[in-house]
Amino acid sequence: MLKEAIYHRAGNNYAYAYNETTLHIRLRTKKGDVDSVTFIHGDPYDWTKDGWQTSRSLMTRTGTDEYFDYYFIAISPPFRRLRYGFELKSGTETLVYTEKGFYKEAPFDDTAYYFCFPFLNGIDVFRAPSWVKDTVWYQIFPERFANGDTSNDPEGSLPWASEEPKFNNFFGGDFQGVIDHIDHLVKLGVTGIYFTPIFKAKSNHKYDTIDYLEIDPQFGDKETFKQLVKVCHENGIKVMLDAVFNHSGYYFEPFQDVLKNQENSTYKNWFHLREFPIQTEPRPNYDTFAFEKSMPKLNTENPEVREYLLKVARYWVEEFDIDGWRLDVANEVDHSFWREFRTAVKSVKPDAYILGEIWHDSMNWLHGDQFDAVMNYPFTNAALDFVAKETIDARVFAEKMTAVLHMYPENVNEAAFNLLGSHDTKRVLTFCDENKNKMKLLFLLMLTFKGTPCIYYGDEIGMTGGNDPGCRKCMEWDEKKQDLDLFEHIQSLLSLRQNHKVLANDGELKFINADEQTLVYERSTDEESVWILLNAGQRTADLSIEIPEGYSNILGTSFS
Amino acid sequence: MLKEAIYHRAGNNYAYAYNETTLHIRLRTKKGDVDSVTFIHGDPYDWTKDGWQTSRSLMTRTGTDEYFDYYFIAISPPFRRLRYGFELKSGTETLVYTEKGFYKEAPFDDTAYYFCFPFLNGIDVFRAPSWVKDTVWYQIFPERFANGDTSNDPEGSLPWASEEPKFNNFFGGDFQGVIDHIDHLVKLGVTGIYFTPIFKAKSNHKYDTIDYLEIDPQFGDKETFKQLVKVCHENGIKVMLDAVFNHSGYYFEPFQDVLKNQENSTYKNWFHLREFPIQTEPRPNYDTFAFEKSMPKLNTENPEVREYLLKVARYWVEEFDIDGWRLDVANEVDHSFWREFRTAVKSVKPDAYILGEIWHDSMNWLHGDQFDAVMNYPFTNAALDFVAKETIDARVFAEKMTAVLHMYPENVNEAAFNLLGSHDTKRVLTFCDENKNKMKLLFLLMLTFKGTPCIYYGDEIGMTGGNDPGCRKCMEWDEKKQDLDLFEHIQSLLSLRQNHKVLANDGELKFINADEQTLVYERSTDEESVWILLNAGQRTADLSIEIPEGYSNILGTSFS
Repeated sequence: MLKEAIYHRAGNNYAYAYNETTLHIRLRTKKGDVDSVTFIHGDPYDWTKDGWQTSRSLMTRTGTDEYFDYYFIAISPPFRRLRYGFELKSGTETLVYTEKGFYKEAPFDDTAYYFCFPFLNGIDVFRAPSWVKDTVWYQIFPERFANGDTSNDPEGSLPWASEEPKFNNFFGGDFQGVIDHIDHLVKLGVTGIYFTPIFKAKSNHKYDTIDYLEIDPQFGDKETFKQLVKVCHENGIKVMLDAVFNHSGYYFEPFQDVLKNQENSTYKNWFHLREFPIQTEPRPNYDTFAFEKSMPKLNTENPEVREYLLKVARYWVEEFDIDGWRLDVANEVDHSFWREFRTAVKSVKPDAYILGEIWHDSMNWLHGDQFDAVMNYPFTNAALDFVAKETIDARVFAEKMTAVLHMYPENVNEAAFNLLGSHDTKRVLTFCDENKNKMKLLFLLMLTFKGTPCIYYGDEIGMTGGNDPGCRKCMEWDEKKQDLDLFEHIQSLLSLRQNHKVLANDGELKFINADEQTLVYERSTDEESVWILLNAGQRTADLSIEIPEGYSNILGTSFS
Repeated sequence: MLKEAIYHRAGNNYAYAYNETTLHIRLRTKKGDVDSVTFIHGDPYDWTKDGWQTSRSLMTRTGTDEYFDYYFIAISPPFRRLRYGFELKSGTETLVYTEKGFYKEAPFDDTAYYFCFPFLNGIDVFRAPSWVKDTVWYQIFPERFANGDTSNDPEGSLPWASEEPKFNNFFGGDFQGVIDHIDHLVKLGVTGIYFTPIFKAKSNHKYDTIDYLEIDPQFGDKETFKQLVKVCHENGIKVMLDAVFNHSGYYFEPFQDVLKNQENSTYKNWFHLREFPIQTEPRPNYDTFAFEKSMPKLNTENPEVREYLLKVARYWVEEFDIDGWRLDVANEVDHSFWREFRTAVKSVKPDAYILGEIWHDSMNWLHGDQFDAVMNYPFTNAALDFVAKETIDARVFAEKMTAVLHMYPENVNEAAFNLLGSHDTKRVLTFCDENKNKMKLLFLLMLTFKGTPCIYYGDEIGMTGGNDPGCRKCMEWDEKKQDLDLFEHIQSLLSLRQNHKVLANDGELKFINADEQTLVYERSTDEESVWILLNAGQRTADLSIEIPEGYSNILGTSFS
């Protein structure tokens, strides 16, 4: 067996508390290298005259990626303490892997050799709100969803959809528009709305906040927003807002004060100012988001800034009953701030959802002390590569997703925020070169996958658009121009997911077959099992696979 | 190159902030597999017409263990943001390793391929108090150090050293005894005392606390303790106390209340009671330390318990000016509690030291939000195996220590608490079968190694003793019975360490040669370099090694 490939370290995705009584343990080995793995375990203090008392249990192989196999076991130690090791077998070879290294036989004279999960403390368990795993999100870019009240249109607003979206044009979308069209969302079957920023800001995207405690007047006022949340809740729809706490806008009052009073400004330590006078060219001489002068980075280490932002975090939950915060550029803000943020938000609404925008490996934010989930861009990319771009085949897709699913704890995977596109990317139909079948397949994939899916407004009726700003077109409300076939497809998938919880996050996910463009995977619980058969190719594929007895068709083409 | 052996994941010991401006990045490869590793890096937002702007820097190989080589680079990104990958070369083969996998050539069309250190936020940097890395600790078990005041001796106390230590005998050691003998510590050259518990308790070891806010009367009163801390501080000695927060003693008032009032006790939720009535046999039906009925586990998730323990944590710092807390059974208490504990302690003394007792892999407690250090038992074990027991040779010792040093960030290693023995283990001289030369070598090793060393009381004068309670003998104060040669050896090592900071934690550590029983390693800074040559064998060894010019002998046998 290849020792260099064998990996386990207590913590992260390899050893974690799944819930208050259950630990999950994983082991990585070289692909195809090992016949079986036995888990050797015991309570560290459980000694009798015969020595340390241990048990043995067979681990399950839960997946394989490009280079590795993964083995798994769920275990409930009676006294919540665990020392453990792994006995690997390959042919006639046996290897015991412990924290202190490899042995030919398990040493039992001391527990110090073994890996250690010292104590399962309930308070440390990663725990996303329970409602999240059954939620289907719908992302709304409020300027472009619907104009329900022309009286609040910003100056120079254009007639709805009268021209292509640009970086600086406005069409007057607002809260009343969302209220007016709530039936569209209910009909589709979504159960949560994620709004991109709604606070007072200069741009049409509102990521350049002027005032975190005020609604942007073009969307309505606080009363309209209260009404909106109420309407959503009455319709079983949760509301999540976008918190842009990494940076403020240029017109945020404290930054304006800095520009005016320079080093004498009382807000000098609210930002990361490198020198005076403040300059914006050629590059800002203060820290910003990217090198964007209009987005000065907030100094979240400053207790005054902290207090202000935590007030904001609590305010919209307490006063408006919102259900979650999506955190913009979340990984550039300090961990210390996010820990306080979590405490503050959960203190006013224990089951509020906290979702971080992170495009990279996010393990360091998902230990239960910071976020409940991150945006699952690795899913987005692999799904688009497989179905839309056809740059990877089914096997590579399965391997990539196996790698991602094994990068995180299972309870993290169940709350992951899966998306096919957003206000930051090309629209999914455009990615598919407007091939509607591909688009349908992508939604089938996302809506039967582990994680919480999110639909970007308009995707469900076949809207197209390139990268920002192209993807931010005005929502099409003319039914004749809506692709109702697509709408019905997605609607039926949502209904299927609603009626078969196994398709949401109650079910395990296992890849059954991945061959060229065809992919078969299973979602299963002890009670129910669903196989998903997918052909991402351009033509009919022959797939010879034995489906166990007792299965019946619940969607799509029948098979023999 | 063996891809399965190549490992990096942003976080833990592989990518961390060393200080407010510097990131440390490490890469693991198969031993002897790779000729060179080039670090490819850039700011994620630094794009020009020519594409993403990156730099290349050669990484240094910092060590090798049984299976792997480790490569390292320190980097200071100008805007504190970093995306990075690794270009590995072996012969004519080139491999580029990124977060998304392996490539033949570095892809530069997108930064999304690369590993990500999103932003170096100063507040998240792991930061042990700066005084720690130059401190040499001395561990005192107060019942057995010196009896300076017989008036507070517990009933039935025995004359000093009149019999062997037992689980239940008392000799009357106290604070006055420590005050009286402070000159011994000053003469030896130690700069910190770690006291095992001093709070009111039943046993002689005091790990079964009755009252966390009271001094055990056998040690003196609060005035004596204040005086003790004052005397220590006047002599440049820091004071660290032992916090037994995992469990209380059986006679802790809240637990007594539970025993008395059972399910009607107001303290019912202070513990983890599994059922009523409370039983202690055959095993306690409440959670304890191990299965020890006299040590009921505290429910640190209960806000009342938290408040009480945090009050204790602050009280001894605020009122008595102690400098640190050593945390007993630290890894069985929840992370959430330790985060609050850190905040509480540092709020009253920002440079207080927080040391956790953890015998296993401790990475999860060493991210800067919980502990400043843990007790480095892997060092203890490897050092004893190599020198005392001779069960491993120099090469294996070097490999084991290389593995440990690369398991943690460098700033963690610098504050690690190194020990050769404690009140929980056989005494080091006994481990050496009373071979004094071995003992001298072990102290040379510990006192020239990376980390903060700790001397267990009496080891410096040649005391012996087996496992607990044997290792808890009364300190020998009769100079005729003290091994003064040993004392002078350790004293001169401490003075050497004091005069050559490179031997403490200012210096890098590098293994130069490890062959059978001889070991050579270097401690170096830009200004100074010291080579340590060690022969752990029973006879003279021939070691052919070229010492660069300009070195002179600073301790021990001269060489040619």
